[in-house]
Amino acid sequence: MLALTILGNNSAIPAFERNPTAQILQNSDELFLIDCGEGTQLQMTRYKIRRSKINHIFISHLHGDHYFGLIGLITSMSLLSRTQALHLHAPAALEKIIQLQLDVADTKLSFELCFHPLATEGIILDENKMTVYCFPVRHRIECWGFVFRQKKNPRKIAPDRVKSYEIPEAYYPQLQQGKDYTTKKGTIIPNEELTTANTIPKSYAYCADTIYDEAIAEKVRGVDLLYHESTYLKDLHERAASRYHSTTIQAANIAKIAEVKKLLIGHFSSKYESLDEFLLQAKEVFDETELALEGISYRI
Amino acid sequence: MLALTILGNNSAIPAFERNPTAQILQNSDELFLIDCGEGTQLQMTRYKIRRSKINHIFISHLHGDHYFGLIGLITSMSLLSRTQALHLHAPAALEKIIQLQLDVADTKLSFELCFHPLATEGIILDENKMTVYCFPVRHRIECWGFVFRQKKNPRKIAPDRVKSYEIPEAYYPQLQQGKDYTTKKGTIIPNEELTTANTIPKSYAYCADTIYDEAIAEKVRGVDLLYHESTYLKDLHERAASRYHSTTIQAANIAKIAEVKKLLIGHFSSKYESLDEFLLQAKEVFDETELALEGISYRI
Repeated sequence: MLALTILGNNSAIPAFERNPTAQILQNSDELFLIDCGEGTQLQMTRYKIRRSKINHIFISHLHGDHYFGLIGLITSMSLLSRTQALHLHAPAALEKIIQLQLDVADTKLSFELCFHPLATEGIILDENKMTVYCFPVRHRIECWGFVFRQKKNPRKIAPDRVKSYEIPEAYYPQLQQGKDYTTKKGTIIPNEELTTANTIPKSYAYCADTIYDEAIAEKVRGVDLLYHESTYLKDLHERAASRYHSTTIQAANIAKIAEVKKLLIGHFSSKYESLDEFLLQAKEVFDETELALEGISYRI
Repeated sequence: MLALTILGNNSAIPAFERNPTAQILQNSDELFLIDCGEGTQLQMTRYKIRRSKINHIFISHLHGDHYFGLIGLITSMSLLSRTQALHLHAPAALEKIIQLQLDVADTKLSFELCFHPLATEGIILDENKMTVYCFPVRHRIECWGFVFRQKKNPRKIAPDRVKSYEIPEAYYPQLQQGKDYTTKKGTIIPNEELTTANTIPKSYAYCADTIYDEAIAEKVRGVDLLYHESTYLKDLHERAASRYHSTTIQAANIAKIAEVKKLLIGHFSSKYESLDEFLLQAKEVFDETELALEGISYRI
């Protein structure tokens, strides 16, 4: 199960009770935090997110609306006596900021905080169930996108079938990898008779903040869900470009070129109270679009 | 008019929808911000606090629950194109933290940010209508208390009386300062006949965070309102001491010794969901006690 929960969807200044960017990606029982604007720990409490399930945090860039909530979250985790290590994947300068704030408070964290500075495009996490790939996007300062891909699940053993062929359990892992079974008499039993396919691995790509850049489409090609920032409506494309942000149409264009399954747009400018027009405009170009709304979980 | 609005009253970790410490002191049309925990800018929006009326911010110490919201507030003020200077009275290390975060974001503020590092006890602000005095309190790290005193208001001219004596307007400032008036014929008109007393200047003292320390009572003697932290109930006085915090009884004792008019207690530990017992215990020692509750304005 892969699901995305939005904790904040606003850009720059909090407005209309919309919080700055933060997202939780749930892969089975593990949570990944993506960006961490001010108030994220309060949003986690509101939406019953279990902090202890978070082992990896990904910060796209060092504009405040994407990380000012991080130091509060980290110190709260320590006050709650967390013991397991926490991994932080972020632009290098963040380490200095965090360390300085811990130093002046004379705080020694209860857990190990492991910094993994983002430096080059490629796989930054390769776990049992998930890989995470980072790639540069084009913003005013260093900024990164992320692609999260579930690993291919092993096939499921069909209990009745393996019993009927009296296959020893030691062979199960090979069967789960798709191998056929050869009986003592030399008969080959095709794997399809002994196992069933597992759920298909899903993928999620996160792109914020960025100017319109078609190179991004190649990085996120075919993902099940693409989050692409859409700070402005289409009429403000010049302002978007000058501030290295994107419009509704531009986000939808990337989704279309990349042939993703679904598009989620967010990072709305504080100048807009209603978000209805965002959805209408994006759907003109890419019908499978949804708004990133706070507290909503999107099953991928 | 002097009034205090509580934006946050919780210690350390936000809990039970209670936010970390932040207070707004309103003196006529000027607002002073005292401490600025995470989410303060959101609380300001919620309680309709006009940021443009804030020219001075006072930060007691550099534990996160007292300042993590500051960088977000400052950058939002800049995004909203503030132009007037903002004065920050805080422990010296805060300047480096703020500057580092502005630098990595490549942010140049739209206004001048003036740092005034707290270094020695004494008057740190002497304005037209207000003086602010700082003094050290005893916490785990450098920490300061503040006393805000309205200046004595000039007496009010009684229009009918000054007209009946045909006193030229040029003399009014002297009358407002309490001087008698001598007519051309040498008759002395007592000031009381020509003016009426203005409102009595009020005072507010803020003490957070601190271990129980009777030396504080001398610093805040006789103020109209004393805010004193009360992180724990009385049974946890040992824990309070070990963490350099105070209990209900201790806060009330300071109020009693200092003979203040009224006591406000706050900075409640996240371990307490109900606050009823805080009020009951403090009132045992000092009856004129109230709880610092979010969104409530206390007229001083």
